[in-house]
Amino acid sequence: MDKLTLIKVGGKIVEEDDDLNRFLSDFSQIEGYKILVHGGGRLATKVATRLGIESRMIDGRRITDAETLKVVTMVYAGWVNKMIVARLQALSINAVGLTGADMNVIRSVKRPVQPIDYGFVGDIEEVDTRMLGMLLLQELVPVMSPLTHDNQGNLLNTNADTIAAETAKALAKLFDTTLIYCFEKNGVLRDEADDESVIPEINQALFMQYKAQGIIQGGMILKLENAFRAINAGVQRVVITKASAIQSNKGTLIQ
Amino acid sequence: MDKLTLIKVGGKIVEEDDDLNRFLSDFSQIEGYKILVHGGGRLATKVATRLGIESRMIDGRRITDAETLKVVTMVYAGWVNKMIVARLQALSINAVGLTGADMNVIRSVKRPVQPIDYGFVGDIEEVDTRMLGMLLLQELVPVMSPLTHDNQGNLLNTNADTIAAETAKALAKLFDTTLIYCFEKNGVLRDEADDESVIPEINQALFMQYKAQGIIQGGMILKLENAFRAINAGVQRVVITKASAIQSNKGTLIQ
Repeated sequence: MDKLTLIKVGGKIVEEDDDLNRFLSDFSQIEGYKILVHGGGRLATKVATRLGIESRMIDGRRITDAETLKVVTMVYAGWVNKMIVARLQALSINAVGLTGADMNVIRSVKRPVQPIDYGFVGDIEEVDTRMLGMLLLQELVPVMSPLTHDNQGNLLNTNADTIAAETAKALAKLFDTTLIYCFEKNGVLRDEADDESVIPEINQALFMQYKAQGIIQGGMILKLENAFRAINAGVQRVVITKASAIQSNKGTLIQ
Repeated sequence: MDKLTLIKVGGKIVEEDDDLNRFLSDFSQIEGYKILVHGGGRLATKVATRLGIESRMIDGRRITDAETLKVVTMVYAGWVNKMIVARLQALSINAVGLTGADMNVIRSVKRPVQPIDYGFVGDIEEVDTRMLGMLLLQELVPVMSPLTHDNQGNLLNTNADTIAAETAKALAKLFDTTLIYCFEKNGVLRDEADDESVIPEINQALFMQYKAQGIIQGGMILKLENAFRAINAGVQRVVITKASAIQSNKGTLIQ
């Protein structure tokens, strides 16, 4: 199978021009088929504040009412997505920015309002691999913003990590797929205070052991559970690393 | 040649839900290949005002500084474009929203700062018919927002009428192309005060005559000059009509 690299990067990357340019330059040099999934949370909060719209979060998740949906659509699918696409074009990468509504690539269902009403938030139902595969074979590079649609005319705010995982799972049937999650640390750490204490590789047994020992805890448990779910669904490998290190062999490998 | 219909509609259409839904329903029923080009000017002004950014216009054209470029990118490529795409999907139209940066479909050059510095405004240099043709043949419906890029990493605000005309001209080599300009009147009128006085068809000779007689004046002269340029460049026919009349035979035909 041909190689596909799918990278998820946070919205923070577009806030610093130098960081963004370095990341996009590194991304442009990745060989083989590739897809970029981006977030955009902090910028959305800033724009919402300037528009006088209050950002409400529960457990780090945004409550998306009708006004907030407009803001995240503007920021994620407009500003962040198109700025990345234009810069990739300047690097000779033929990027195409997509939400899940475009080409119907990701259809979701509005999350039930019980126990918490998150508003216009989507849970993914289907990723259309035919269209994404067609784009990749045309040497296009999809740049996906964290919005999907319900096929009833509504856009839905959708977690970027989940979009990356579900898209990787779906495409793993067609490509030898590597999913890279970029975050602020060098990888999964033995010692949260020491950014050099990266655990180079983790399997399911080691994960259980580290979790029992309290070496892996907090939000990283969720990240790794997502990674193992992707691996169990056929994704060939998952890497957890820093955005500035995607061209290095640093980070934590799960396979 | 296969038939292609390219419709340009103003940004105003998305401001009224009922009008938008009726228009999109009519649009969805057009047979053959089709492309939608939308504006979004009024909404951009509203959002800019709420963000505390002053909108400056010269002769009805927006001065696009760096902050304004972010606003129009958010409004045109984000909110307006994706709302239209999501609603077309609900009508079983497989829409894909694009700026000129996506797939490099429209490359432009930043307008010279003399005699007036319009800021980040683009004059179109090239429309990539290969990518647009590929999308159409995949039964996808491009929905184009009025932004292009300079291939050096910059998005550029670009007149939607011009995007529609240049795209129609480029695709007229591959398709039997009809370009429909929607505006607030029923067509080109003999009497500006009487919306029923539509001139059903105009050719170059008649246009010169009406212009000399003062029957056609003001902004309509520019619209018709654009239409004749499109016809002279190979577009098979141009129709000037109301958004609510695209499925009727009303309006003014130029061919």
